[in-house]
Amino acid sequence: MTFAPLANDTFLRACRRQATPYTPMWLMRQAGRYLPEYRATRAKAGSFMGLATNVDYATEVTLQPLDRYALDAAILFSDILTVPDAMGLGLSFALGEGPKFATPVRDEAAVAALAVPDMDKLRYVFDAVTSIRRALNGRVPLIGFSGSPWTLACYMVEGGGSDDYRLVKSMLYGRPDLMHRMLAINADAVAAYLNAQIDAGAQAVMVFDSWGGVLADGIFQQFSLAYTARVLAQLKRRGSDGADVPRIVFTKGGGPWLQEMKALDCEVLGLDWTVNLGQARALVGDSKALQGNLDPNVLFAPPAAIDTEVQRLLASFGTPHTGAGTGPTHIFNLGHGISQHTPPEHVQALVEAVRRHSARPA
Amino acid sequence: MTFAPLANDTFLRACRRQATPYTPMWLMRQAGRYLPEYRATRAKAGSFMGLATNVDYATEVTLQPLDRYALDAAILFSDILTVPDAMGLGLSFALGEGPKFATPVRDEAAVAALAVPDMDKLRYVFDAVTSIRRALNGRVPLIGFSGSPWTLACYMVEGGGSDDYRLVKSMLYGRPDLMHRMLAINADAVAAYLNAQIDAGAQAVMVFDSWGGVLADGIFQQFSLAYTARVLAQLKRRGSDGADVPRIVFTKGGGPWLQEMKALDCEVLGLDWTVNLGQARALVGDSKALQGNLDPNVLFAPPAAIDTEVQRLLASFGTPHTGAGTGPTHIFNLGHGISQHTPPEHVQALVEAVRRHSARPA
Repeated sequence: MTFAPLANDTFLRACRRQATPYTPMWLMRQAGRYLPEYRATRAKAGSFMGLATNVDYATEVTLQPLDRYALDAAILFSDILTVPDAMGLGLSFALGEGPKFATPVRDEAAVAALAVPDMDKLRYVFDAVTSIRRALNGRVPLIGFSGSPWTLACYMVEGGGSDDYRLVKSMLYGRPDLMHRMLAINADAVAAYLNAQIDAGAQAVMVFDSWGGVLADGIFQQFSLAYTARVLAQLKRRGSDGADVPRIVFTKGGGPWLQEMKALDCEVLGLDWTVNLGQARALVGDSKALQGNLDPNVLFAPPAAIDTEVQRLLASFGTPHTGAGTGPTHIFNLGHGISQHTPPEHVQALVEAVRRHSARPA
Repeated sequence: MTFAPLANDTFLRACRRQATPYTPMWLMRQAGRYLPEYRATRAKAGSFMGLATNVDYATEVTLQPLDRYALDAAILFSDILTVPDAMGLGLSFALGEGPKFATPVRDEAAVAALAVPDMDKLRYVFDAVTSIRRALNGRVPLIGFSGSPWTLACYMVEGGGSDDYRLVKSMLYGRPDLMHRMLAINADAVAAYLNAQIDAGAQAVMVFDSWGGVLADGIFQQFSLAYTARVLAQLKRRGSDGADVPRIVFTKGGGPWLQEMKALDCEVLGLDWTVNLGQARALVGDSKALQGNLDPNVLFAPPAAIDTEVQRLLASFGTPHTGAGTGPTHIFNLGHGISQHTPPEHVQALVEAVRRHSARPA
């Protein structure tokens, strides 16, 4: 496959810890329900999975936020639970609820039946990646993604969202052998899934460990971090176009373990809003780019307050690397996905504030 | 008031960073729904508030876990939301849901109308404290408590529990003046409330900052920590019996800010399960006792697994102070409240494991 050359490589440069003329930005869940044009496409598709599995719709919604805002990266429109769905667990999204699995994995027999799924079942995702990359036509790079092995396991055992993770933690503490088996399969499946996205045209990949932060110290390292590392070790380092493919790891609530995440074989660490960017930079900025970490709730405040918080966040990171070679870099993002209730004009104010306050003399 | 002398002062000694023959323990929400005898009393009372406002019932359920388990402290049975209820917000508990306020505080007029409530409206709490202290008859000390100013504000604005804290954070970022006014009133109310508990017989007090961890770095310090400090500065240092009254601060998700919590004028920091006890000890153990921090979900595993996790946790703290004078001490607890689904016999296994593995030669 050949694709158009990149017009805006600020995001990829920042991933590589190279200087950029301003701090590049994108937003987790930037293609989503807060945009009226997304809701219109979603209505045409009939259901969330109807949207995610249709290449044309997935392409359309992925590009929607780029048509509104000067964002520096696109992220594949999909869901973190496509992999367990392909394992046969039966994913569905009931209206106004979260994701549900028809057959959750709760006993030894169910774990024994798990296997890395045939990637052909996820062909709709890889087709969407190629379609989006073509549609982008080099405007900005495309990020592929997956849930982390542990985060997938949470949903696979709980059968959906959870307040207390009682079922998955009961298995973890009571039958660690089963949990390790599930996580090993998930890790190998996630690696195959991300590699196929890379082959299809993804220019960076991100692992969302959305629920790593619910684990206890000591347990996180064994049951989440170790399997994220197992994914990273299997990832292709070059895309079909020969370019390097930066790898981003985001652990919500992972602040306590930054020291250990520093050792991950990836280029970028995503941070939630509880982390002080300056402290994180002091800890890992000599080895990783940092991505984050505005509280999405800031976007409910008036533009003047958004501007203040943007300045505070940029200042907490400090001046990024300039000049040749590599050094500490920052990719602006939220600390979690954007809320469906966000006023779209506040996102405009955010994007302008980040560009204005981060622009650096050439 | 005069009360019986204490037969077991291990908890208070550990709060003061003095040596104890074993690591004292109690459990957040130890009087609660996981105990059949609690559910029986709750049924007699008719409602949660019927239970909390009746001195005899509150005394009965506070003592129930002590009759089953060798715990080293009692904690007043009450709710963290009694103070905003006394402010006139109308607290209720719908069956199977969480707490609800009839008149949440969402605009300038509602904030302007807030005031420190007449403590007479909370007389039922202080009467319960005295009744429980008498009923304990010196078995173990009694801990009083309150929600933190920020945590109360979350419920007061949201009107109940929340997934995203959108309303309270919208006010925080959009109208910080209103939020500061509410927090100042909450802090003064919480201080008066805890002082009245101390006068009534509480031998230690704890501030639960259950939702401090949802705040962004920089915001937590201004909108939660500063008002917890305002509470602490106003607290009485001696009970009616002349004894010192240790002060415990627990911030769920507060791990990223331990360095700053070290400066709080309190004796004990409560930690959730994401914090490494050894690292926390290295950071604050020369100034504060540490309380915590087993994941409550460990209690769903079989007793052998509970034993393993107890040993791991005790080892992560390391050997506490022995001999005369003061030094680093640990109070064993969960990292959050015990789940209603916990098998009571697993709590027995936990208590025995902590005692067995922490016993120190005399």
